[in-house]
Amino acid sequence: MTFALPAIEPITDVRLEAKLRHKIDHKTKPVGSLGQLEDIALQLGLIQRSDVVSFKDPQMLVFAGDHGIAADGVSAFPQEVTVQMVGNMLAGGAAINVLARQHGFHLQVVDAGVAANFDDHPHLIKKKVAHGTKNCTKAAAMSGDELHTALQAGADIVKSLPGNIIAFGEMGIANTSSAALLLHRLTNITLKDATGRGTGLTDPQLLHKRKVLMLAVLRHPDAVDPLQVMAAMGGFEIAMMTGAMLQAASQRRVILVDGFIAGAAALVAQGLSPQVLHYMVFCHRSAERGHRLLLEHLKARPLLDLDMRLGEGTGALLAWPLVQSAARLMNEMASFASAGVSNKDG
Amino acid sequence: MTFALPAIEPITDVRLEAKLRHKIDHKTKPVGSLGQLEDIALQLGLIQRSDVVSFKDPQMLVFAGDHGIAADGVSAFPQEVTVQMVGNMLAGGAAINVLARQHGFHLQVVDAGVAANFDDHPHLIKKKVAHGTKNCTKAAAMSGDELHTALQAGADIVKSLPGNIIAFGEMGIANTSSAALLLHRLTNITLKDATGRGTGLTDPQLLHKRKVLMLAVLRHPDAVDPLQVMAAMGGFEIAMMTGAMLQAASQRRVILVDGFIAGAAALVAQGLSPQVLHYMVFCHRSAERGHRLLLEHLKARPLLDLDMRLGEGTGALLAWPLVQSAARLMNEMASFASAGVSNKDG
Repeated sequence: MTFALPAIEPITDVRLEAKLRHKIDHKTKPVGSLGQLEDIALQLGLIQRSDVVSFKDPQMLVFAGDHGIAADGVSAFPQEVTVQMVGNMLAGGAAINVLARQHGFHLQVVDAGVAANFDDHPHLIKKKVAHGTKNCTKAAAMSGDELHTALQAGADIVKSLPGNIIAFGEMGIANTSSAALLLHRLTNITLKDATGRGTGLTDPQLLHKRKVLMLAVLRHPDAVDPLQVMAAMGGFEIAMMTGAMLQAASQRRVILVDGFIAGAAALVAQGLSPQVLHYMVFCHRSAERGHRLLLEHLKARPLLDLDMRLGEGTGALLAWPLVQSAARLMNEMASFASAGVSNKDG
Repeated sequence: MTFALPAIEPITDVRLEAKLRHKIDHKTKPVGSLGQLEDIALQLGLIQRSDVVSFKDPQMLVFAGDHGIAADGVSAFPQEVTVQMVGNMLAGGAAINVLARQHGFHLQVVDAGVAANFDDHPHLIKKKVAHGTKNCTKAAAMSGDELHTALQAGADIVKSLPGNIIAFGEMGIANTSSAALLLHRLTNITLKDATGRGTGLTDPQLLHKRKVLMLAVLRHPDAVDPLQVMAAMGGFEIAMMTGAMLQAASQRRVILVDGFIAGAAALVAQGLSPQVLHYMVFCHRSAERGHRLLLEHLKARPLLDLDMRLGEGTGALLAWPLVQSAARLMNEMASFASAGVSNKDG
C-alpha cells in the first residue's frame, strides 16, 4: 500500500491576521503583555478562520510501539514495560490518565506495534503493524510497506475522531533511541547531541547507547529522505503519529505536540509537508538532550519547560490549559473602548 | 496601630518528606521524570501535612493602589487607569476575570489605596488606606501608621476568607517603580537592573524612569529594613499583599505568587519572616527587567516563562493548573507495585 500525503493548507491569511492582531492589541492590557499567549491566540484564530476560537471534543492519542534496538540495552527499563504501561493506561493509572481526567480529554491508546497481543478494550485502538520493529543496528526497522501501513493507520484514526484538537503522545521502551536517530539523520545535529539519558541512563549506559546508535547510523548510509529514514530507524508509534499529524493538519485541527518522540514525528511530518507546522502547538521542552535542539531546528518555542522527561503526552496536556486560556482571553476580554479604559496613546 | 507578625511554622518534616518522596518515586514513571512538578507535589504535601493533597475554595485577590510617583511620568499609562481597571475587573472584562472564570477562582478586588472612591460592589473589598501614596521622590510614600494599617488589613482579609489556596495579584499604575525601588534597596541588585519598561516604556521614557527612581533612592538614605523601605518607597497594594501573604502562610495556605509586584511583596514578607517562602509557589517569570533577578535572589524557580508583563495575577492563575496537576499526579497515579509494571531495578 502507499500512503497518500493529505493536502494541507497554509493558515496564512493577511486580512484575518490583521483583524486578529487588532482585536488582541485593543484588549484592556498593554500591547504584547500577554507574551506567548498572544502568538497562540493568533495561531488559533488563523487555524479556525475566526476571531472567536472554540474547542470541541479534545482527543488524546497515545501511540505505543516496541523497538528491536531495545535488545541492545539502550534503555534503563526492560522492553516488557511497554506492554505493562499500555495496561496501566487502559486501567487509568498512568500520569497521562490523571491529566486526561483533569482536563476532560478523551484518551485512547493506539497499539501501533507493541510486542504483545492485547484483548479488546474500549480505550484501545488496535493498529498493530508488527510485534515491534526490527533491530535497526542490523536491518531496516520496518519495510516500506510497513511504513506506509503505519502512516495510513495514523491518518485513518484521525479521520474517525470527532473534535478539532488532538494531543499526541507515545509510549515505547527505547523510543528515545529512534527519535535521536531520526533527529540526527534529518538535521545537522550530531548523534552525540541528539542522544540523551531517556528514562534515566547512568553515564556508562549513556556511552553504551551512543555506541549502539552509531552502529545504527552506519548500518543505514543510504537513508536520506524522511520516509527512508523513518523506515530505516524509526518506530511504528512514531510513523503512525506522523500520519496522524498530517491528517489532523489537513482537517485544520489543532495539534498539541508533546516531547522528544512526538517532536521527532513532527519533524518527519514537516519534512513531508512543511505547512503541517502551522497547526502545531509545541507544548513543552523536555529534559531529554536533543529535544531542545529539535525545537530550535523547527524554530518552535514551547510553552512549558519543567524539566520533564516522561512522554505519554503529559507535556501536551499540562500545556493545554494555556492554549485554552489564549483562546478565552481573545474571546472574552474587554477592549479599551468597551470597558472605558484609557489607552496608552490617549 | 502596630501590625503583629503572625507566627509561621516551617514546613520541614523529615519523616513526612521521606514518605512523600517514596510515594512520588514509586509512581509508574522514571524517577524524577515529572521534573518540577515533583518538587511542587512535595511542597504541597508538606504544607498540607498529608500525602493526599486537596484544594478548597481557591481565592484570587487583586490588590489595587495608586502611587504618587506616577505624577513624575514613570508609566506609559495615566494614573486614572488604576481606577478604570478596577472598574473593568468588577465588570468582569479584565484578563484576570477570564482566567478566574476558567479555573473557578473566587475573584475579589481589594481597594488598598486607589486615588478615587468606589461604590459598594460584591467583588470589591474596601480597605483604602489613603487616596494613593505620596510621591516618594519628595516624601515617604506612607507613614508608619499607614504601613501598619495596610499590613493588618491584608491579614484581616485573609482571615475572613475560606479555603486553603490564595492567588495574589495587583493593579496600580507606576507600581513597577515601587517594586524596583524595593528590590534595589532590599538586595544587592542595582537600580538600573531593577528598573524595566513596565507597561511599555520607550527607550527615552525608560531613561527618565531611571532618573526619577534615582531621586527616590537618594531621598530615603536611611530606609534599610523591610518595613522602613516599604514605608519610604512601597505602595499600599504591595504592603497589604505582604500582610496577606504572611497571614496566609501562618494558616498553612498555599500562596500563588504572580509577577514582579507580587514578587516584591513576597520579598518584603520574606525579609520579615523567611519561612513564609515555604508556602509560596512562584508562578511565572515576567518579561519585566528585575523580576528574573528577584526570583534568583529568592532562589525561586517559577513554573512559567511566557514573556508576560500584565500583572493582575494572570501569571498565578495560568500556572494554577500545573499546581493542581502536581497534586493530582501524587494523589491518583498508580505505583509500580499496584500496576504490575517492572521497575528499572528489576
